[in-house]
Amino acid sequence: MKLAIVGFGYIGRSYVRALNRKLDLLRSIDDGFKVVGVADIEGYLYNADGLDLGRLSVITKITEYRGEKLYGGSAIELLEKGEIDLLVEATPTNVKDGEPGLTHIVKALTRGIHVVTSNKGPLVVAFRRLMELAKAKGVKLKYEATVAGAIPIFSLVEKCLRGDKIKRIYGILNGTTNYILTRMHFEGVSFQQALKEAQERGIAERDPTLDVEGVDAACKVVILANSLMGKDLKLNDVNVTGITKITPEAITLAKRAGYAIKLIASIDDRRTVAPKLVPLNHPLCVHGTLNAVRFEMDLAGELTLIGRGAGEETVSAMLNDTIDVLT
Amino acid sequence: MKLAIVGFGYIGRSYVRALNRKLDLLRSIDDGFKVVGVADIEGYLYNADGLDLGRLSVITKITEYRGEKLYGGSAIELLEKGEIDLLVEATPTNVKDGEPGLTHIVKALTRGIHVVTSNKGPLVVAFRRLMELAKAKGVKLKYEATVAGAIPIFSLVEKCLRGDKIKRIYGILNGTTNYILTRMHFEGVSFQQALKEAQERGIAERDPTLDVEGVDAACKVVILANSLMGKDLKLNDVNVTGITKITPEAITLAKRAGYAIKLIASIDDRRTVAPKLVPLNHPLCVHGTLNAVRFEMDLAGELTLIGRGAGEETVSAMLNDTIDVLT
Repeated sequence: MKLAIVGFGYIGRSYVRALNRKLDLLRSIDDGFKVVGVADIEGYLYNADGLDLGRLSVITKITEYRGEKLYGGSAIELLEKGEIDLLVEATPTNVKDGEPGLTHIVKALTRGIHVVTSNKGPLVVAFRRLMELAKAKGVKLKYEATVAGAIPIFSLVEKCLRGDKIKRIYGILNGTTNYILTRMHFEGVSFQQALKEAQERGIAERDPTLDVEGVDAACKVVILANSLMGKDLKLNDVNVTGITKITPEAITLAKRAGYAIKLIASIDDRRTVAPKLVPLNHPLCVHGTLNAVRFEMDLAGELTLIGRGAGEETVSAMLNDTIDVLT
Repeated sequence: MKLAIVGFGYIGRSYVRALNRKLDLLRSIDDGFKVVGVADIEGYLYNADGLDLGRLSVITKITEYRGEKLYGGSAIELLEKGEIDLLVEATPTNVKDGEPGLTHIVKALTRGIHVVTSNKGPLVVAFRRLMELAKAKGVKLKYEATVAGAIPIFSLVEKCLRGDKIKRIYGILNGTTNYILTRMHFEGVSFQQALKEAQERGIAERDPTLDVEGVDAACKVVILANSLMGKDLKLNDVNVTGITKITPEAITLAKRAGYAIKLIASIDDRRTVAPKLVPLNHPLCVHGTLNAVRFEMDLAGELTLIGRGAGEETVSAMLNDTIDVLT
């Protein structure tokens, strides 16, 4: 199988390193496994015989890759160029119109190319349309990395809980706000102080709006509801309240009563993202940048999964999606 | 597919009710799905055209099933009798020699019959031998229910984390001892008082030895290590310390320092079951009868799963194993 990777930022580069580390495993599944193209803002690399994963693993920009022509065109040109079987889409999330990821994914699916993506934007904007396009073309569209990073939510439900019915999904789906709330809880600092610290540590972005206003968590609610509960939601179908108005006083009151304030995303008949009181001894009450997802199932009862929601661990989800496409 | 269920105790009956509840789903996967036999200590029921799941769902002993002859023979006779495709083995666990489950499972596999079991005994005694027999006969042997009940540990690793390598598995794998330790932690009672309460509530057995001495957790260590980490362990390869010597004073000291004492099973280079200090804010620090399993993976990092380790929820694992065999 021939891969093209589009997006060579933190996630794209981490994914390439994971491929390089797991090359023996991947080749044991598919002896024709190779990465033939990598595209980023500067253009793209392409070699039908395969690029060198060892060399790709140690560069930070595709312009640094030696011994191969750098084409000036776009990712679309790369997708039209060669015999590509799988697009790994790792461009940044854009929740407004899903671009440029949406165009990349539509292009790939239309050409009968499987897609593995870490990009929430296209799924938030056009989930149903993309799934139908994939189905019509007989290819897979996998997106495990888009919600709760390294926690294999979608494959767990799809592959391990086929006899169960989901009654409710809720949890902590944004690591940045969980970090801020954790610092407020344990250190007694204000929202602004905790946010500043999160920004200094690279946990919050310079413009933290999408995280602290709950929009990022709402995107994940849209993807979960559409994927696992058969809905056809858009972002404005989710009732969203962020954490910007939470005061140290509120945190202290909660703490004294045995609770923490957590930004909880919840999906049942209603879809909400809002700060909620969670008992300190509850399985969902995880701290730092951790994510936690709780399923209420009709047979299994309550199942909680806790893990890394962002960062390098996310490539586990992308690699496992990749293996799913290979087999 | 034609099922025979052996063992009609709490788990066997709960499983039958789950089958009855999910019959439409099961028939949509396999339109020939039926339960042709049910065996227990009193003998067995058999009808090649299928027994009535509705009627089986409301009885507590197979002698109460009307309109069908009750055969006086053993489960082995049932397995030899008809065309059975899948044995669901739900007799009680016997960690000494695995019987009678071991004989049932060996008989089924030898005859080319798939097996789904909730019975730890045969796997603790003869894991490698049974897996090799299943492989040689080209049938499946599924045992999701044997460890951490409703938490789909084995299928998660097998199906959702194929690209990851497990570095360590640890967690709380026995609900009875977790309940006792939880009562000691929150109520300040002694081990004996907490045990008595657990027995009154049906959480601990009259002879609680296997639970409180850590043997039940050690059985799960054996199954996990053999299944997921390629080992060939027996029960005496696990270093086991129970919870009987834990005093209220030790619990209080731990609590003041921000810890709880939990019975932790751990598998890496060493295999142990022992009381350990767990920070109160740690994802593994779950209370009551809950189980919690933590994986350290090479890519995904630390993943924690929390859910019901025993009781009716366990049939989720058995039903999902059944679906796995049907497909």
